[in-house]
Amino acid sequence: MKNSAILLVSCPDQKGLVASIADFLYSHNANILHADQHQDAELGLFLMRVEWDLSGFDLDIADFGAHFAPIAEKFSMQWRLALSSQRPKMAIFVSKYDHCLVDLLYRHKSGELACDIPLIISNHEDCRPLAEFYGIPYHCLEVTKDNKAEAEGAQWALLDEHGVDFIVLARYMQVLSAEFTARYPQRIINIHHSFLPAFLGAKPYHRAFERGVKLIGATSHYVTEILDDGPIIEQDVIRISHRDALEDLIQKGRDLEKVVLSRAVRWHVESRILLYANKTVIFD
Amino acid sequence: MKNSAILLVSCPDQKGLVASIADFLYSHNANILHADQHQDAELGLFLMRVEWDLSGFDLDIADFGAHFAPIAEKFSMQWRLALSSQRPKMAIFVSKYDHCLVDLLYRHKSGELACDIPLIISNHEDCRPLAEFYGIPYHCLEVTKDNKAEAEGAQWALLDEHGVDFIVLARYMQVLSAEFTARYPQRIINIHHSFLPAFLGAKPYHRAFERGVKLIGATSHYVTEILDDGPIIEQDVIRISHRDALEDLIQKGRDLEKVVLSRAVRWHVESRILLYANKTVIFD
Amino acid sequence: MKNSAILLVSCPDQKGLVASIADFLYSHNANILHADQHQDAELGLFLMRVEWDLSGFDLDIADFGAHFAPIAEKFSMQWRLALSSQRPKMAIFVSKYDHCLVDLLYRHKSGELACDIPLIISNHEDCRPLAEFYGIPYHCLEVTKDNKAEAEGAQWALLDEHGVDFIVLARYMQVLSAEFTARYPQRIINIHHSFLPAFLGAKPYHRAFERGVKLIGATSHYVTEILDDGPIIEQDVIRISHRDALEDLIQKGRDLEKVVLSRAVRWHVESRILLYANKTVIFD
Amino acid sequence: MKNSAILLVSCPDQKGLVASIADFLYSHNANILHADQHQDAELGLFLMRVEWDLSGFDLDIADFGAHFAPIAEKFSMQWRLALSSQRPKMAIFVSKYDHCLVDLLYRHKSGELACDIPLIISNHEDCRPLAEFYGIPYHCLEVTKDNKAEAEGAQWALLDEHGVDFIVLARYMQVLSAEFTARYPQRIINIHHSFLPAFLGAKPYHRAFERGVKLIGATSHYVTEILDDGPIIEQDVIRISHRDALEDLIQKGRDLEKVVLSRAVRWHVESRILLYANKTVIFD
Repeated sequence: MKNSAILLVSCPDQKGLVASIADFLYSHNANILHADQHQDAELGLFLMRVEWDLSGFDLDIADFGAHFAPIAEKFSMQWRLALSSQRPKMAIFVSKYDHCLVDLLYRHKSGELACDIPLIISNHEDCRPLAEFYGIPYHCLEVTKDNKAEAEGAQWALLDEHGVDFIVLARYMQVLSAEFTARYPQRIINIHHSFLPAFLGAKPYHRAFERGVKLIGATSHYVTEILDDGPIIEQDVIRISHRDALEDLIQKGRDLEKVVLSRAVRWHVESRILLYANKTVIFD
Repeated sequence: MKNSAILLVSCPDQKGLVASIADFLYSHNANILHADQHQDAELGLFLMRVEWDLSGFDLDIADFGAHFAPIAEKFSMQWRLALSSQRPKMAIFVSKYDHCLVDLLYRHKSGELACDIPLIISNHEDCRPLAEFYGIPYHCLEVTKDNKAEAEGAQWALLDEHGVDFIVLARYMQVLSAEFTARYPQRIINIHHSFLPAFLGAKPYHRAFERGVKLIGATSHYVTEILDDGPIIEQDVIRISHRDALEDLIQKGRDLEKVVLSRAVRWHVESRILLYANKTVIFD
Repeated sequence: MKNSAILLVSCPDQKGLVASIADFLYSHNANILHADQHQDAELGLFLMRVEWDLSGFDLDIADFGAHFAPIAEKFSMQWRLALSSQRPKMAIFVSKYDHCLVDLLYRHKSGELACDIPLIISNHEDCRPLAEFYGIPYHCLEVTKDNKAEAEGAQWALLDEHGVDFIVLARYMQVLSAEFTARYPQRIINIHHSFLPAFLGAKPYHRAFERGVKLIGATSHYVTEILDDGPIIEQDVIRISHRDALEDLIQKGRDLEKVVLSRAVRWHVESRILLYANKTVIFD
Repeated sequence: MKNSAILLVSCPDQKGLVASIADFLYSHNANILHADQHQDAELGLFLMRVEWDLSGFDLDIADFGAHFAPIAEKFSMQWRLALSSQRPKMAIFVSKYDHCLVDLLYRHKSGELACDIPLIISNHEDCRPLAEFYGIPYHCLEVTKDNKAEAEGAQWALLDEHGVDFIVLARYMQVLSAEFTARYPQRIINIHHSFLPAFLGAKPYHRAFERGVKLIGATSHYVTEILDDGPIIEQDVIRISHRDALEDLIQKGRDLEKVVLSRAVRWHVESRILLYANKTVIFD
C-alpha cells in the first residue's frame, strides 16, 4: 500500500517558490511521485500539489510543520498536509433516491475511494438494507419543518462522535441551514442535477425539459450558504432529443449524477482540490 | 441531383393519421425516401416529416395543396411543403468576429448547405475581403444608437429585394428590434456563446470563467422578441480546466460556435426542424 | 403499467409498405404510441418498429399473425411481435469482475430494465452475496479446459429449465463455444472493453495503454462465432491522458462498460434493435 | 507580445531533479509562467516542460546551453529550448480535400497558431486560390508512381530553401517514402480519418460504415516509417447512427479532422509535446 504525503500550497506568486519547496523536499530525501502546479496570472496566485513517498523521507512527518514553517512564512503560504495512511472519514447523507448511494458504496468497497465511511444519515428508512449489505451503520433521523434545528443538532452529534471529516450529500433532499454549512466549510459535497448555473434550485429536469435543451447536465460542488452557488468541482452532460420524455431525462441524468459525484468525492479524498475565488483547481 | 419533396406536418394526435398520409402518398405513387414522426404524449401532439422522390410521383407538385387539403382539414393539420429544387435564400449578418462566417461560407461552397446566399449584411467593413473571395455581395450598414430604426429599414429593403427566406446571425453583435424579429418568425437563427439558459445576455465566456464551470457551451436558437429565449435548435459543450485562461475559453468556444451554428443552419435548410411549445423537434 | 405491442419488420424496400402497415393497424383501431422506420437506400432495405397501445385494439393479439400474414407475405417481410406484458427472461453470466453485474442488478431493481432475471451463472463464487442481496438464484459452474463441453451442457440445462430468452455476458471471462453461440443467435450480448474494432481480443486496456491512445472505449455487441466480431449495439469513449496509469484506464473503463452494456440490454429488452448486414439499427 | 523561453526535459527519474532545475532558473532570476512535469513510474522516466518570462532573466539566452550543461549532464537529460520569439516554420502538404487547409490557414491568420507558413506544397492545383487569398506561396508538384523519388527531391529542395521546421499533412494523399520520414523525425504531423488503431490504412470511413460502429474518429499523429503507427498526438470521436449514410460519416468526419489536426499543430508549435516509448505527453 502506498505510504505517501501530499502537500497542498497556495500563496501569492513570486520567484523562488518552486525552488524553495523542491529544495526543502530534496534536502530531506523525498522521492517525489507527482507534482503539479498552477499559476493564475491575473490574480497573481500560485497553487501547488506535491506528493512524495515517505519511505526514505528523513523527517518525522509529525514534525513537518515545524520544519516547513520558515518557508511557509517567507512566502505567506496557506498549506495543508495529507497522509495516505490517514484515510478521511466520510459521512453520506441520503433521502429516498438511492442511485448515488449505491454507486458510492460500491466504489468504496471496490477500492476506488480511499476513505472510511463511519455512517450514513438519512431522513428515510428506504436505504437501510443497502447500508446493511455494505456493513455501514445507518442512522434515520426524520426532518420536518418544525424539528429542523433539533434534527441538525442530532446529526452534528453523530458526525462529531464519529470524527467525520467531510460530508457527501448523495441526493439528500433537505436544504442544510447556514449554521450547518458554516460548520463544514469546503467539506460538504453536493450533487445538483443540472448543468449549473442553469436550472438552480428545485426540479431542474422538469425545467430543462420545458426549456427544450439538447443536453442535460449534473454538477458536483462544495456547499456554501447560498443554494447551488458553491465552487464547482465537476460537471458533465449527456445528449437528449425530442424522443426523450421527462422520465428519460431523469433516467439519463441518474447516470450523470453518479459519475459526476463520484469523481468529486475521489478528488476530495485524494486531496486533489484547491479552492480560490469560488473556483476549484483539480490536480488530476 | 436529388429531386424530392418534404412534407412537414403537426396536428393533434389521433388514430389514422399515419395511414391517411401514407395512403395519400402511395396513391400518387410516391417513393418515400425518409419518414420520421414524433408523438408528444403529454401534449397530445403529432409531428411528422416525410420526404419522397418526385420522379414517378403522379401529382403535379404545384397542385399538392389542393389534393392534400381534405386530409389536412380532417386532422386539423398545420403543414408545409418544401422542394429540394427550391433552394432557400439565406442572408448572413455578421459584425467583426468572422469565425462563423468563414465556416458557413466554406460549408456552403463545399456543398454542405443546400441554400443560396444572395447577400451578407454587416455593420463593419472587416469581413468584406472574405465575402469577395467567395463571391457573395457584401453590404455594410453602420448601426448606431441613433440610426437603429433607419438601419433596420435599410436592411429590410435589402432582404426584400433579394427575396431572403431566412437570416443567420453569425456573431452579429446588434440586438434586433421587436419589429425586426416579428417580421421573420422562426426564420432568424442566432448563435449564443453559452450553454443556454446559463449565461444569458452579454459576455457569457467572462461569466463562465468567473463562475468556474468545467464545461463551456454554445447554443443555436431561433430568435424571438425575448433575448436568448427562443427555441433551442442545437447545443454542444467542451471541457475546460483551471489551465484555461479566459482567452482559451474564447478560442475553444469558437470551435463550438461554428459547429453548433452550422448544424442548425443545415437542419433549417433541409426542413428538418419543427417547432412546438417553444421547443424544436429535429428530424435528423 | 403500459400494455402495448411492438412490431418489428424488415423487408425489401418498396412502395406502399408504410401505407399497408398503417392501414392494417388503423383498421383494428390501434393507438400508435411510437413509430420509427429506416430505409437503407444502398441495400434497398426497409426496417420498421411500431408500438401501439393494446387497449382499444380490436384484434386478439394471439391471432395477430394470422391476420397480418397476407401483408407480410405480399412484401416478403421478416417480422416479430413483442408484448410489453411478456417480460423477456435474461440470464447473466459473470466471472469475478462484478461492476457490470452490480450495475445491471441495480437498474433491474429500480425498474430501468423491463425483464426478469431467473438466474445468474458464474464460474466463480465471488458474486454470490450480491446475487443473494437482490434475490436472484446464483449457479456456480466451474469451467476448465477439460470440462468445457460438459460445463456448457450444464449451463444449457439451466437456461432451458428457466426458459431464458437471452444472455448477457457481464464480463464473463470464458469464450463460448461455437455450438453455444449458434444456440442463441442474436440473443447473447457481450461487453468488450475497447472501442471495437480496435484492440480485439485479450487485454485491450493494456494494449490501449501501450499504443498511447487519447481515448479509451467500450463496445456492447451481439456474440457470433467469431470473437468480438458480432453486430455492434453501442459504443462510448472517455478521454485519458498521460497522467492516467494503466489502473486508471481500467477504472475509467469500468464506468464506460457499465453504461454501454446497460444501454444495449435495455434496447434489447425493449425490442429496439434490428439487425442487417452485421449491423444494428437502434430505434430509440 | 510574450517573450518567453520553454525548456523541455526528459531523463531517468531521480531525486533532486526538480530542485536542480528550479534552483538554476531561480538563480538567474527567471519568472516562471508555467511548469508541468510527469513521471512514468513504470519506466522510471521524468519529463518536464517549464516556461519562463525572459524579461528579468539575467542569462543571455544564447548562452543557456553552456550554463545548463552541468545539470543536464549530471542527470543524463535530453533537453530542448524553444523561444517564443522564434516562430517555427511550418510547411503544409495538401492534395484535393481542402477542409483541413482552410481551417489551418484561418487559424493561422486569426492568431491561434504562433508559427510562420512559408509555403504550401500540393500535387494538385485545386487549393491555389485559397493559398493566394491568404498570401501563402503555393507550389504544385505532380507526383506519380514513376516520379516519386524525383518529386520528393523537389519537395526537399523547397523545404530546405525555406528553412522549414516541420510539416503538416493536411489530407495529403501520397504516402511519403521512408527516406522522407527519416529526414523529419517527429516533425511530420498527419491527420488520419479514423480512431487509430482501428481502420489503419485506406478508406477508413468506408470500413467504419461497413463495420457498423456507433462512433467515428480522427487521429493526429507523428509520421514514422510504418503507416499510421506513429505516436498519437490527439484523437476525438463523434456519434453516428444508422441514419447516417457513408457521405454523412465523411461530412461529420471532416469537422473532427479539422479540430483534431489543429490541436496537434498548436501543441507542436507551442512546444507542448514530449515523446517517449512511441507515446506523447501533452503539457497543456
